[in-house]
Amino acid sequence: MTAWIALVHHPVVDREGALITTAITNLDVHDIARSARTYDLPGYFLVTPIEAQRRLVERILGHWRDGAGARRVPERAEALARVEVVASMEEAAARVEARAGAAPLSIVTSARAGREATPYVEAARRCAERPAILWFGTGHGLAPVVMEQADLVLPPIRGVAAYNHLSVRAAVAITLDRLFGGD
Amino acid sequence: MTAWIALVHHPVVDREGALITTAITNLDVHDIARSARTYDLPGYFLVTPIEAQRRLVERILGHWRDGAGARRVPERAEALARVEVVASMEEAAARVEARAGAAPLSIVTSARAGREATPYVEAARRCAERPAILWFGTGHGLAPVVMEQADLVLPPIRGVAAYNHLSVRAAVAITLDRLFGGD
Repeated sequence: MTAWIALVHHPVVDREGALITTAITNLDVHDIARSARTYDLPGYFLVTPIEAQRRLVERILGHWRDGAGARRVPERAEALARVEVVASMEEAAARVEARAGAAPLSIVTSARAGREATPYVEAARRCAERPAILWFGTGHGLAPVVMEQADLVLPPIRGVAAYNHLSVRAAVAITLDRLFGGD
Repeated sequence: MTAWIALVHHPVVDREGALITTAITNLDVHDIARSARTYDLPGYFLVTPIEAQRRLVERILGHWRDGAGARRVPERAEALARVEVVASMEEAAARVEARAGAAPLSIVTSARAGREATPYVEAARRCAERPAILWFGTGHGLAPVVMEQADLVLPPIRGVAAYNHLSVRAAVAITLDRLFGGD
C-alpha cells in the first residue's frame, strides 16, 4: 500500500465558496503526521504556495526531527520524518511519481455529497494496486476544479447526525482507519 | 445510543508513569466536541480538578456559544452546546446517572495492550443497552486504577505499523467511528 496524504492550503474555498489560501496550523502538522505514521503511509505533504509558511514548517520540522524536541519526544521525530512541504499539488504529485514510478491515483474527500462516490472498501483496493494521493482540503474544502479532476471521490463521513463539521484532523484519522485500519 | 464521552486531565500518567494533572488544550475542546456532535453523542465532559482551568473552558464556551464566535460560526456553537466541565470523573458519572436514570457503563481506551479487551462491535452493542461513558486520557493515558476499575476496555487502535502515538483527538475520532459510524 503506497498511499500518500496531502493537506492542501491552496486551492481551497471559504464559507462563501471563494478561492482562498489558508494558513498552516502547527497542530495539523503534528496530528496528521502521527496518524499517517500509525497507518504506515510513506509520506505526508503540506501544500502551500506561500514561501514564508513553507519556511515556518521547515523550522518546526527541524526542531522535532533534529533539535530539542527530537531528544525529548523521539516518537514525534519518527512521525515527522515523513512530512514534506511543497508549493503546489502538482509538485506533490510529481514527487510521488518520481518515487513510485507511476502517476498517482488522485483521491479526494469531501464533507459534502457531490460526484458519485467510491465506497471505502473499493478505494482501498485501488490503493493496493497503484500509488495514490489522498487530498484533504483545509478551510471549507478543496476547490471545485480539484474535486472534478480527481480520479476517485470518497463518500462524506457521516456519523448518525446530519451534522458534519469534523475537524480536518478528525476526518483524516477516520478516513485512514476506514481505508487502512481493519484490525 | 446514550454514550457520553469524557476527556480526563486527572488522574492520568506522564511518560514515566507518574500521576499528573495535564493542562486543558483549547483544540481538544473544539475538535472532540465536533466529533461528538457528528456521532450525535448526548454530551462531552472535560474533567479537571483545577478550578482556574474550568473557568478558562467556561470562557471559551461562552465565546462560541453566545458571543462573537456563535454569530460567525453557528455550527461550532451547536457542537459546543454539549460540552460540560467537571471537577472529577465521579462528578461526570453522577451527572450521567442523574440524566439517564442508571449508573453508566464505564468504558476505557488505551494505546497499550493490557487487560482483556472487548471488541468494538460488542462494546457498541453494550452501549445500545445502557448509558455509558467513554473515558479518554490525556498525557500518557489514564491512571492504572482507572483502567482496572472500568467495566470494559477497548482494544488499542492499531494501524498497520507498530507505531501507535495517535493524538487523543485522532483516537477519539476513530473510536467513535468504529463504535457508532457504520455507514
